[in-house]
Amino acid sequence: MEEKLALMIEAARKSNERALAKLISHVEDRKPGWKDIMKAIYAETGRTCVIGVTGSPGAGKSSLVGEFAKQLGDMGYTIGIIAVDPSSPFSGGAVLGDRIRMRDISTYKNIFIRSMATRGMLGGLCQAARDVVRIMDFAGRDIVIIETVGVGQDEIEVVSASDYVVLVTYPGGGDSVQAIKAGVMEIADIFVVNKCDRGGADVIVSEISAMLDLSTETTEEIPPVIKVSAFTKEGIDKLMEILSEFIQKKNEGSHYQKEHIRQEVMSILETEMVTLIKEKISSNGNMEKELKLILSGKSDPYSVADELIKRFAVIKNPKQKRKGDFQ
Amino acid sequence: MEEKLALMIEAARKSNERALAKLISHVEDRKPGWKDIMKAIYAETGRTCVIGVTGSPGAGKSSLVGEFAKQLGDMGYTIGIIAVDPSSPFSGGAVLGDRIRMRDISTYKNIFIRSMATRGMLGGLCQAARDVVRIMDFAGRDIVIIETVGVGQDEIEVVSASDYVVLVTYPGGGDSVQAIKAGVMEIADIFVVNKCDRGGADVIVSEISAMLDLSTETTEEIPPVIKVSAFTKEGIDKLMEILSEFIQKKNEGSHYQKEHIRQEVMSILETEMVTLIKEKISSNGNMEKELKLILSGKSDPYSVADELIKRFAVIKNPKQKRKGDFQ
Repeated sequence: MEEKLALMIEAARKSNERALAKLISHVEDRKPGWKDIMKAIYAETGRTCVIGVTGSPGAGKSSLVGEFAKQLGDMGYTIGIIAVDPSSPFSGGAVLGDRIRMRDISTYKNIFIRSMATRGMLGGLCQAARDVVRIMDFAGRDIVIIETVGVGQDEIEVVSASDYVVLVTYPGGGDSVQAIKAGVMEIADIFVVNKCDRGGADVIVSEISAMLDLSTETTEEIPPVIKVSAFTKEGIDKLMEILSEFIQKKNEGSHYQKEHIRQEVMSILETEMVTLIKEKISSNGNMEKELKLILSGKSDPYSVADELIKRFAVIKNPKQKRKGDFQ
Repeated sequence: MEEKLALMIEAARKSNERALAKLISHVEDRKPGWKDIMKAIYAETGRTCVIGVTGSPGAGKSSLVGEFAKQLGDMGYTIGIIAVDPSSPFSGGAVLGDRIRMRDISTYKNIFIRSMATRGMLGGLCQAARDVVRIMDFAGRDIVIIETVGVGQDEIEVVSASDYVVLVTYPGGGDSVQAIKAGVMEIADIFVVNKCDRGGADVIVSEISAMLDLSTETTEEIPPVIKVSAFTKEGIDKLMEILSEFIQKKNEGSHYQKEHIRQEVMSILETEMVTLIKEKISSNGNMEKELKLILSGKSDPYSVADELIKRFAVIKNPKQKRKGDFQ
């Protein structure tokens, strides 16, 4: 490894924030040596407690994350926040006050914030988030909070790689529970009904509790549903109590560890394979010939994809110890 | 191809709805011969106008889609609706009245509705949606409407494969514009502020217009921003007028065609590659040995992923006409 990188790693190990930021950028941008960095730091990670926070846009996740990050910071924990922001190049990613509110808390000691724009990112969103978690973990952050802006499939995957998932909803014209059905309900460890100062929160709590009641096995523990207000601070104490329990449990060891690692390997593998074959294709005429065939009705995307795989990749069968086995 | 499949294709070509539904299920479930179906029908597709409808949960997309599907149906068009529903197995995918409202309009002639659950789906969401569009196209649907539940990265990819994208938002405590920044703004061809009967809609319209004004090149056409109410029917006429223009334009040929096909090939290719290598890995011990190495600190996910790629796949360089070139 280059000496510059080794020095950056050494400084990050000592929790130097500038080195941490540089290391993240280096890996995010897939600059030469990024994978060596990840391999080098891996053995010293796995200690941090990762909390995923998701929910529909406008649920007040940023304010809430700001609030409990501050409190956890005051309790002596070092915090890393990853704001997964699928910002459009169009809007510049800061239409509303989100990032401004975030900047507010970034001056707190113990809190390190990193925004992750997902557009134009090299490698998948999910893997990129995992990488950043690993680096923050290595740099000694006790707790890493991943906050997503929306609730899509990718966002669900991102938070499902956390140790604990907080789902934030709010009273908003009776439509808020709809946001929950987006595949996230079964991965949430706690349901937070935010903006409870607005009224209507009790209805949401009942609805969520009813859904949980119906669908949870009698042997399972029903996840807590709590009302909070980042504005009046109602319920924040209760939330902090539950989060502290999570952090405590994590320190006693996580059951999901093996499954998480399996997912991580597959996610890296997929990203790498796709990157490799994309490079090959773009350096070999970028499919122009094939596209013409499709446009003229002489072929179709399925046949072209099959043919490209056969041409550029061989899926081997290692058991038979033969090269070139394509199935 | 099996005779049963050939008969199914033949019946779907004659717009038989049962055959259409069966064909979709066959392809969605990746049953034997699914790819032959896609290859067989491809040449007879490309005629339908695909309209993607997205926006945050609770924006009233389903009601709106129901409304304009009915009107387009009355105008003589045959409609296919794909409701992309990232339903959790937990909630059964029908927490709120969405699918009930949908069932309402499914009794209308000319309208064929298909719900697509994304959890546990074989192959990517985006490719699966494209496949269903192709099949509906083949079965003679003039217009296919894709409606997503949320606004995540996957959902944006799904609708970005449409000919036209409708972004639905609504007045909801000033937070609605936040939903827009999720990377979707630059792909929207029309902005609809729904539930304008509720008040506050004008503010949203101004905010969106201001954003568009700031970021659109002077040479570009600024997409329309309109207020509608699926409840009072305000603005629906204007919306129908714009949609009719879209459909007209599509019939005159789309500029995006080549780029869409390129995306489609890449999407099929990625899904296939990943499926192939996943099968190999799971039939070769499912990484148990490698996971143990990682857990004991002797390896890391990055090294394991590299090693698995080297063991199971060869990325070839066809120009050099050599086997086994791994880069």
